[in-house]
Amino acid sequence: MTIESAIPEHLRRARTRHIRVPSDYAPPYPSYSARFQPAVSQVVMAYFGAQWRGDQPVDTVPEGIAASGHWDRATYVDERGYQTLLNVAYWDDIAAFDTWFANHGKAWTSPDRPHDGVGYFTEVLRPTVDRYETLFSAADRLEGIGVLAPELSGEIQEHAYWGGARDRIPLSQDNEMAPAGRSAVEVDGPVRRIRPADNVCVIRSGQDWTQTEADERRMYLEDVEPVLRAGMDFLRDDGLPIGCFFNRYVRVLDDAGTPADKSYGLSWWSSLAALERWAESHPTHVAIFGAAMKYLSTLGPAARLKLYHEVSVASADQQLFEYLNCHDSTGMLRTAR
Amino acid sequence: MTIESAIPEHLRRARTRHIRVPSDYAPPYPSYSARFQPAVSQVVMAYFGAQWRGDQPVDTVPEGIAASGHWDRATYVDERGYQTLLNVAYWDDIAAFDTWFANHGKAWTSPDRPHDGVGYFTEVLRPTVDRYETLFSAADRLEGIGVLAPELSGEIQEHAYWGGARDRIPLSQDNEMAPAGRSAVEVDGPVRRIRPADNVCVIRSGQDWTQTEADERRMYLEDVEPVLRAGMDFLRDDGLPIGCFFNRYVRVLDDAGTPADKSYGLSWWSSLAALERWAESHPTHVAIFGAAMKYLSTLGPAARLKLYHEVSVASADQQLFEYLNCHDSTGMLRTAR
Repeated sequence: MTIESAIPEHLRRARTRHIRVPSDYAPPYPSYSARFQPAVSQVVMAYFGAQWRGDQPVDTVPEGIAASGHWDRATYVDERGYQTLLNVAYWDDIAAFDTWFANHGKAWTSPDRPHDGVGYFTEVLRPTVDRYETLFSAADRLEGIGVLAPELSGEIQEHAYWGGARDRIPLSQDNEMAPAGRSAVEVDGPVRRIRPADNVCVIRSGQDWTQTEADERRMYLEDVEPVLRAGMDFLRDDGLPIGCFFNRYVRVLDDAGTPADKSYGLSWWSSLAALERWAESHPTHVAIFGAAMKYLSTLGPAARLKLYHEVSVASADQQLFEYLNCHDSTGMLRTAR
Repeated sequence: MTIESAIPEHLRRARTRHIRVPSDYAPPYPSYSARFQPAVSQVVMAYFGAQWRGDQPVDTVPEGIAASGHWDRATYVDERGYQTLLNVAYWDDIAAFDTWFANHGKAWTSPDRPHDGVGYFTEVLRPTVDRYETLFSAADRLEGIGVLAPELSGEIQEHAYWGGARDRIPLSQDNEMAPAGRSAVEVDGPVRRIRPADNVCVIRSGQDWTQTEADERRMYLEDVEPVLRAGMDFLRDDGLPIGCFFNRYVRVLDDAGTPADKSYGLSWWSSLAALERWAESHPTHVAIFGAAMKYLSTLGPAARLKLYHEVSVASADQQLFEYLNCHDSTGMLRTAR
């Protein structure tokens, strides 16, 4: 089996920084990265949220969101007990996104929007292709930004060790991706915007137990999921001091709006380094890692659970946040307190 | 609190390789490194073992071992059920060691030694000061090579993350420390010697529960030690495919020859990278890490358990192995099969 670099050939450049493993490193199990066309220079990951109190469901999407390359929906209850609907849409054509956003997307948090008791927020991340990486544990049924890629890599080398995410991001070849600046809230009537900092890190890390059965499903739901949830709750409630701006552990909805057997954690961090430190040494993630490792080593290649993530490190001009009638703990707003 | 680099000033040089953490990284708890005089250019860690079958104790040391800077003793039962006594001696003066070894130490595995049913082995590591690092969880009661250092550092920066050991070794500033060559056994009458490979990695990783009491002692012995032992057993019995040449989990003896409340794991690896991979991702060490983390986070700063280690990456000419009448699984001999 040939192993290839997660960094596609057209994004390789002279290194001033080394990867963390030897050149003959062979990962203990396979993983894959999405391969985008060389013509793609930048992608968009746009989150459109609606938050409300009470049991009355809110079912709303930005107008024309189907014009995106791919989108999905999820729900969660946030730290203040608000129901939240999260529409996420992906583009691999920045001009198409800009046009769509000016015509439709911008209205999501428009101050002219009638006040219907619902809070709306828009969180957009638009990393250039050297600033994100994707990882899939299985070669079928991609999720997130990966759905837009025409193909998947072969087995990649840079995974299954701490620091792999950094090594998969092309910019890491010659850039430390150190954070710079400090995000701040700007109030504009009923809308609050964030002035972003540089090199903020975002991870969508997903779990798909659709194909698990019997013992495997029970093991996932009873032995792994509660540990994952505890870690997600920790990040949501107590993550700020360790650099986690906010965290949402969400349940994906299927096309009919019914909860699917899929979830993901979405967290924004002050830096990739802060995410690395939590992942590799905080008791809550060490517990998640231990539970997942026990699960996967018990099941071996028979495991049907699918895992994936996408990690971006965005410059200040690649981020946009707008909050309309949202409570003060919503997303980046809580970093201002 | 000022944080200092584990690499002493006189060993710093222009970097071509970066450390794994940002320059403002602050470890979550303190650790310390031994500080040697700048005049010390090379040290010696010399292991003199005696192995036998049966209950009759063997109590023997190389002649004049007290001329070393520091030495201690330990026992263990090896994978074939042999009782083993391990004398370890440290020097910070290579010329003094060479003289002593020629006059006394060499006799330990001399073919002229009367055959008394006991196997003898000598394993010497003599790294230059840019090729090892030490780490102590507490600032008092040093162990191992650290005993020879006149002082301890203040709180160091490069620890409490995966890759810290590499970052503490001065040579890592501009050298990957990649393994080269392959060790081989050479037979010379009753003595077997090893032709060493380059950049072999050695760790002595110790535990000292002398000062623990009541609940802490119980937690260490019941919750942590069995997990540590399982990991040590794995490395001893099944470590070879992942690059662990051999592993010994030993109990330290006090001056009277009685087991002290101290143990250490001593393992030799094909490379520092192989040790890093096991430590950070193998289920047996993830379990050790998880158990230790739970223990330390439960106790907080009140913990009286002391942990330390010394890690060396030795070039081929900094290693010496001789085995006299030892069984085929002893130390490096097992790598030849």
